Amino acid sequence: MAEESLQLYDTTLRDGSQREGMALTVDEKLAVARHLDALGVGFIEGGWPGAVPRDTEFFRRARTELRLRHAQLTAFGATRKAGAVVSADPQVRALLAAGTPVITLVAKSHTGHVERALRTTLAENLAMIGSTVRHLVHAGRRVFLDAEHYFDGHRLNREYALAVVRTAAEAGAEAVVLCDTNGGALPDQVRQTVADTIAATGVPVGIHCHDDTGCAVANTMAAVDAGATHVQGTAHGYGERCGNADLFTLIGNLALKQHRHVVEPAQLARLTATARAITELTGIPPRTAAPYAGASAFTHKAGLHASALRVDPGLYQHVDPDRVGNTMRALVSDMGGRSSVELKARELGYEVTAGSAEVARAAARIKDLESDGYSFESADASFELLLREELAGRVPEPPFQVDSWEVAVAGRPGEVRTEASVSLRVDGVPLTATGHGNGPVNALDRALHQALDPYFPQLARLELVDYRVRVLTGETGSGAATRVLVSYRDGERRWGTVGVDQNTVTASWHALLDAVRYALLDEVCAGRPAESPAPSLAPA
Amino acid sequence: MAEESLQLYDTTLRDGSQREGMALTVDEKLAVARHLDALGVGFIEGGWPGAVPRDTEFFRRARTELRLRHAQLTAFGATRKAGAVVSADPQVRALLAAGTPVITLVAKSHTGHVERALRTTLAENLAMIGSTVRHLVHAGRRVFLDAEHYFDGHRLNREYALAVVRTAAEAGAEAVVLCDTNGGALPDQVRQTVADTIAATGVPVGIHCHDDTGCAVANTMAAVDAGATHVQGTAHGYGERCGNADLFTLIGNLALKQHRHVVEPAQLARLTATARAITELTGIPPRTAAPYAGASAFTHKAGLHASALRVDPGLYQHVDPDRVGNTMRALVSDMGGRSSVELKARELGYEVTAGSAEVARAAARIKDLESDGYSFESADASFELLLREELAGRVPEPPFQVDSWEVAVAGRPGEVRTEASVSLRVDGVPLTATGHGNGPVNALDRALHQALDPYFPQLARLELVDYRVRVLTGETGSGAATRVLVSYRDGERRWGTVGVDQNTVTASWHALLDAVRYALLDEVCAGRPAESPAPSLAPA
Repeated sequence: MAEESLQLYDTTLRDGSQREGMALTVDEKLAVARHLDALGVGFIEGGWPGAVPRDTEFFRRARTELRLRHAQLTAFGATRKAGAVVSADPQVRALLAAGTPVITLVAKSHTGHVERALRTTLAENLAMIGSTVRHLVHAGRRVFLDAEHYFDGHRLNREYALAVVRTAAEAGAEAVVLCDTNGGALPDQVRQTVADTIAATGVPVGIHCHDDTGCAVANTMAAVDAGATHVQGTAHGYGERCGNADLFTLIGNLALKQHRHVVEPAQLARLTATARAITELTGIPPRTAAPYAGASAFTHKAGLHASALRVDPGLYQHVDPDRVGNTMRALVSDMGGRSSVELKARELGYEVTAGSAEVARAAARIKDLESDGYSFESADASFELLLREELAGRVPEPPFQVDSWEVAVAGRPGEVRTEASVSLRVDGVPLTATGHGNGPVNALDRALHQALDPYFPQLARLELVDYRVRVLTGETGSGAATRVLVSYRDGERRWGTVGVDQNTVTASWHALLDAVRYALLDEVCAGRPAESPAPSLAPA
Repeated sequence: MAEESLQLYDTTLRDGSQREGMALTVDEKLAVARHLDALGVGFIEGGWPGAVPRDTEFFRRARTELRLRHAQLTAFGATRKAGAVVSADPQVRALLAAGTPVITLVAKSHTGHVERALRTTLAENLAMIGSTVRHLVHAGRRVFLDAEHYFDGHRLNREYALAVVRTAAEAGAEAVVLCDTNGGALPDQVRQTVADTIAATGVPVGIHCHDDTGCAVANTMAAVDAGATHVQGTAHGYGERCGNADLFTLIGNLALKQHRHVVEPAQLARLTATARAITELTGIPPRTAAPYAGASAFTHKAGLHASALRVDPGLYQHVDPDRVGNTMRALVSDMGGRSSVELKARELGYEVTAGSAEVARAAARIKDLESDGYSFESADASFELLLREELAGRVPEPPFQVDSWEVAVAGRPGEVRTEASVSLRVDGVPLTATGHGNGPVNALDRALHQALDPYFPQLARLELVDYRVRVLTGETGSGAATRVLVSYRDGERRWGTVGVDQNTVTASWHALLDAVRYALLDEVCAGRPAESPAPSLAPA
């Protein structure tokens, strides 16, 4: 049993960033690292310091801002240049300057790449590997070596590929990671090559696969079967071309299908939430069909399976979705909808009766809204407002009415001004206010504060902390529906709301209004006792 | 060599339709079938006549409207009900009434499913299979049998699973398709079970996989290695939960990695076009990272690779994209640096000198802009404008100047109006225009058209086709930078531009301006001869 020694190594922030459309800021990279750490990944490769300015900045900030509880942060870079002195090589110095406990070096293991891409001799390439690994190990770092194009290289010149593995290990590399860099391998080739490499060298090996044949996950599993003890992947399989092996799928397979100990059960139960949080950060549309963590992974359409599902969900599901924090949904019968509404309502502290008419109405409204583009996953507060309306059987009297609102953005070279104005009524008394900001949402938020804070002092603590826009369809130009999610916080809690409209500004307005209505709910505003008098209409 | 006997069987129109969000009309189903036929697929499963009204209608219309040149149309359905007389079973009659040359029957091969889901005896299930297959073969049909949950069934009760295979074959089924219905299998299990089934029964077997472990393609390949001669899949891997095996990836792997004869080379070269055409019909956002046919499948971003790509594209691509009708693309990003800029410039038709000062300046500007939140990967036109400035060594005289612009969004209950106005100058002459729309971008686009079309008639063909917004940081509220990508097309081409600003509307304005500036470049506007007189200032 080699179970204890299986290392999970994430390269979302380096190799994953090569995905088309992926461009994370340093803040977003830090946030992704925190999510991966909480999932229980062992190593997080943060980028290529010295080569990519944003990555250099990431490592600089990580030293003070990133407190990893489980993972070790890893810097990625190349061996010294041909003919260079390793201690003077600026890239190698940048790697050490990143200050990580672990460094992963990439090196060529394919003779054609050494000669045609690197343009050096086979012997010098080995010398570059040996001297760079030794230098970093001597500086106190754990070192992994990524052997690029290993599988094609091993087929072309097995002895040279094995020499790369031996050279790195002899110089002190902890493991040599065999990379299918162009993604063209199939499982049998991977299995045989990994087995041959371990048998010939005795060196601990890792596996790094790309998905150009749709087999990145299967190739990784084949390598583990053949004895690889270090597994690389990326969140959602992000990566260049067809992407890398999907770390979430690998975790699911290794833990639940092969019973390997890769993360703790409680960490495994965060798999779906982690996947969704990272989706929000990258802004890349999620693959709903993704194994284990996808929104559709345990979703059943009615038909052949519907009745059997009621008898025994296990008949049609290969694993229990609870294990990975996902849920079963049924699409045609609204059973799934009602039970998730019930579950969510109880989670929020509402007592609801299973199968009640209120729950059925709420589920039906959510279904309609979702087909219009709403999404309540990150908008608990909008969900709660809707649920309260259905439980009460009526739309409650709002704390204020909206007569009109307006946003004007005016630009001339070098200057843009944004002004929002709102006309509201509180207890029948009209009030208007304007706000300026650096954009429509900001200006509307300030106008609302300006108008309402005097009458609802508890709103003064409210702060707009997040704002996300998603255009929902691709081919209809600016006529597409837009979904806006906003998050507010006060001293104690944070809540999200959602608005959908063809017009981005209108969608934002609806989300803002929901957020303020939510803040004014009696039970939410701990600062506003139920017996307090109606707010004075004379501003303080 | 069993190459001649490998059957490609598509079930996009039946099993693929179970994908969440997929709802094809009969017209669309007919169009999908035509595309699959042109690709060279051997069998096209059209649906379940008698159970799904739209499918009954599909088969009715297919008889007169669908002229397949290569594929055989197949109807799918269940065996007769327990205790029923096969010739009187309405579902079986509906299958025959569909009038297809081939029928695929689904049957249980897992004792737990027979007893708990079907609620009949093991013996009666075998009798249902035998009598139904015989009845259809007697009616002149080719018959395949889909053995549901075969892999779990074989593990639970191997003898019964084998009895299902033998019963179907003895009754005249041409092949028995082993289905991993819940998608939970891994390649080794599939290989062993397929090999055991063939060895024990001698019956020709097919394979039908789902992707719940991310191994649908690898499982299918393992089954083929073990002797399966019939391969089922769906376009884009559409299907319930995590989907089915992706037929396009399977075709690429079988033809190019395993050198099996599955389709003709000219058909293989249609793979990418077929995939895109089917995406248009289903309306499901394409998976850009899909192997072989995805828009990113041969797209390179890394600096490490970009320099080597110039030397030899074969070094970084596992197959030649021409073989599947796809193309190599280079992305501009801070990871690629100068090499990506050079590669991209050449792709766009500019002659640039490797290592020139112009390229270095362009790369440096791109790096700076990217650290501000710009991304040029989906904004070739913004990249080209920047590149031309650097190649020219100056900012060219713009075809029009902007004095000011404004957007106003005004809402009152039940009504929102959006108006944009622009004040521009062409050759020193001021012109103003307004436009209304369903949002700021739409209104600004119309105001620009209103102002400029009279002076630049070629702009009249311009159409805004896509609009994407991304708020770039998570914790800074509406003060975060916003990146807007817009896409325009005219009759011939399509181009994307990017704008970044704290203000969403300002970012959109910059992207729109770049798009119009790009459209007015001499070399881009074929319709505007260089010697044409200055546009008349009197609107037509």
